[in-house]
Amino acid sequence: MNLNHTHELSRRSWLASANEVGTDFPLQNLPLSVFRRRNSAEPWRGGVAIGDQIVDLAALAQTNCSRGEAAKAIEAAAAPKLNGLLDLGPNAWRALRHSLFALLEVGCTDEATVRATLVAQGEAEYTVPLNIGDYTDFYTSLDHALNCSRPLGTTVGANFDWLPIAYHGRVSSIDVSGQQVYRPMGQYVSNGASVPVFGACQRLDYELEIGAIIGTGNSRGTPIPLAEAQEHIFGLCLLNDWSARDVQAWEMQPLGPFLSKNFATTVSPWIVTTEALLPYREAWSRVAARPQPLAYLCSPFNRAWGAFDINLEVSILGAQQLAKGLQPRSLTRTSFRHQYWTLGQMIAHHTIGGCNLQSGDLIGSGTISGPSEGEAGALIELTEGGAKPVDIGHGETRRFLEDGDTVIFRGWCEREGYARIGFGTNYGTVLPSPVCD
Amino acid sequence: MNLNHTHELSRRSWLASANEVGTDFPLQNLPLSVFRRRNSAEPWRGGVAIGDQIVDLAALAQTNCSRGEAAKAIEAAAAPKLNGLLDLGPNAWRALRHSLFALLEVGCTDEATVRATLVAQGEAEYTVPLNIGDYTDFYTSLDHALNCSRPLGTTVGANFDWLPIAYHGRVSSIDVSGQQVYRPMGQYVSNGASVPVFGACQRLDYELEIGAIIGTGNSRGTPIPLAEAQEHIFGLCLLNDWSARDVQAWEMQPLGPFLSKNFATTVSPWIVTTEALLPYREAWSRVAARPQPLAYLCSPFNRAWGAFDINLEVSILGAQQLAKGLQPRSLTRTSFRHQYWTLGQMIAHHTIGGCNLQSGDLIGSGTISGPSEGEAGALIELTEGGAKPVDIGHGETRRFLEDGDTVIFRGWCEREGYARIGFGTNYGTVLPSPVCD
Repeated sequence: MNLNHTHELSRRSWLASANEVGTDFPLQNLPLSVFRRRNSAEPWRGGVAIGDQIVDLAALAQTNCSRGEAAKAIEAAAAPKLNGLLDLGPNAWRALRHSLFALLEVGCTDEATVRATLVAQGEAEYTVPLNIGDYTDFYTSLDHALNCSRPLGTTVGANFDWLPIAYHGRVSSIDVSGQQVYRPMGQYVSNGASVPVFGACQRLDYELEIGAIIGTGNSRGTPIPLAEAQEHIFGLCLLNDWSARDVQAWEMQPLGPFLSKNFATTVSPWIVTTEALLPYREAWSRVAARPQPLAYLCSPFNRAWGAFDINLEVSILGAQQLAKGLQPRSLTRTSFRHQYWTLGQMIAHHTIGGCNLQSGDLIGSGTISGPSEGEAGALIELTEGGAKPVDIGHGETRRFLEDGDTVIFRGWCEREGYARIGFGTNYGTVLPSPVCD
Repeated sequence: MNLNHTHELSRRSWLASANEVGTDFPLQNLPLSVFRRRNSAEPWRGGVAIGDQIVDLAALAQTNCSRGEAAKAIEAAAAPKLNGLLDLGPNAWRALRHSLFALLEVGCTDEATVRATLVAQGEAEYTVPLNIGDYTDFYTSLDHALNCSRPLGTTVGANFDWLPIAYHGRVSSIDVSGQQVYRPMGQYVSNGASVPVFGACQRLDYELEIGAIIGTGNSRGTPIPLAEAQEHIFGLCLLNDWSARDVQAWEMQPLGPFLSKNFATTVSPWIVTTEALLPYREAWSRVAARPQPLAYLCSPFNRAWGAFDINLEVSILGAQQLAKGLQPRSLTRTSFRHQYWTLGQMIAHHTIGGCNLQSGDLIGSGTISGPSEGEAGALIELTEGGAKPVDIGHGETRRFLEDGDTVIFRGWCEREGYARIGFGTNYGTVLPSPVCD
């Protein structure tokens, strides 16, 4: 996959809102979702974001604006889930992008036809855009690992340097941005106690992550080499791996997190394609002070192998702040480029033992935390295990999440000579526990 | 759910093989699978085992032998997956059993019509009978936990007494009995080394488990109370949770097993329904020396709440032994009744934090090991961590699995005054690693 005309900064859309400074969705982005008009009985169908509008792919499929592979891709993407599009493979995804780019660019002779398919984003609601077969969550930020170890007086495990650590997550409780998250009930142990109590989670947290959608899978027993791993990713989204820290601490030995994670996971509605993200890659490197990876995880130190530099921001709005229409204060600003392992390395490792990935699988990057203060992707890090309350703005502080809190993630890419492209917003709101003890 | 005429020992089928001593599939069992004739292009469809035959539910759906709810259930079960049947709910599952019982009993006037739908089990091949949404694997045998801790000089964690420990497993690599399992490649650390090596797993193992199929789920945030948990289980099967012990030891801190488990999981083709298993329940109890569970996991000490007494047997046949047609020697004989936590407690715990189960989910019981010698459900236990080779019969021993080994599980229930019912066989064969290092 190479840079091409769809990445050129000079290209403009005939839709004015796509050319505005600061939009997440210029002509160079073209992310996909599944949407319908809010509070309608319309069928769910695929859509492509452009400025403040959505190209309705079901409507576009009824026109004659595209031909050949692009027309097939648009038809597949007009379905209530995008799995059919994924199954068509990388050439079809590319044809879809390039066809929409042409249709939305200044000077397109089909402008009127395409304009008739637009739905305002402000009128839309979204759903999880895929039938997800399996969800794997990684743990690939060294800064996150260090931040979590420090308050416990422990060290990061010896295996962190050698493999991208991961566990399997829960698919059934994945929902799209806007998810209402019940505060989980569970068992936990108070400081010094030897017997657990049962009650509502007291240390509810979020985890800032990037989600990767597997576009093409592999057969059982046939690993994906690192050199090909990138081509298996359809695109990325923002992901919140909600976490109950007190439940987690008590349950996770020896088999890892379970109830502390499986009550909810929130994904953003828009999937930004791998092709759109190409200009924002960093060179791969590994500092000499750390071990170099084993051969199957090792790659040249250049931009074809590195991380995506995705800027990320977290904020929290309390229930009263939200009701008053206050603007959120930024709690965290970091970038996905800080992860110790790349998405390619995660995929190469995931399959090296013979495990098969399938089109539509979701991969979580693990919490994204950068090396500096204010770059931590979870409250447990920002508050040093709940010891130091953090200022969320407008006179409120938090150690952990309170009922009514809305957690908001934003992500975008910028690079000199290229357009700014964004992921939109991923938000979710904490509801009180529905169960009494 | 109560004992009824379908559990009576005196009832006989018009099919002679169903009445033979030692059959797994008498009239009182009636387990379900999805099957077709081997090496055919026939569609997959549901089937019910009786003696050495299968009632072809797609063929039965074309007759007028059943009415009302039973006819609807048979039609749903004639599909290539049984999810449609599960979605019909417990009354439909019960109607299906009772209708088939009547059709297969001595004296049925439709005998000739039903006989025409039979396919010999010897001519059939099977597939995973459900689209599985999520797969959860528990860790609920205290003897297994003790056996695994002893060679490491560690103790069982304090949380074992308080909650059924679990992790999320991999759905994509679940296959049916007969699965060919590639020996996984991976990272592991040799004794005393501080740096991992990459190569083929040297400590490949099986885990003897029972799989439970969730029949009806729950909504996110609405836990299933223990008193209702049993009703959410459609039925049980045999499950092999293949494990790469060297990979596991290196990777599992802090988030649990990943590549050491996700390369393969094997389920038996036949699902024995919860109704068929009713006579074989034990009384629930918890010895006074251990803590009593928290309220949401606590139940009366009687048979309505206890474990199923399912006899289990493991054997291994080496490649040469298999080629010579030798009979396997029993390595392990134990029972599912020894588990520390019941399936009902697993379900109540799984959902207490708000996690939603869905119809078609698979729950693994965790390795089943009993308290006595020869009751351990994995080689790592039988061989004390690989220290003491175990006799697999015919002059061969094993520390861990070798290429070409076939691992065979059998399961059955017996109780005085009731029929013997069985699960059939769950087997899988180890293939050499397909990848070179």
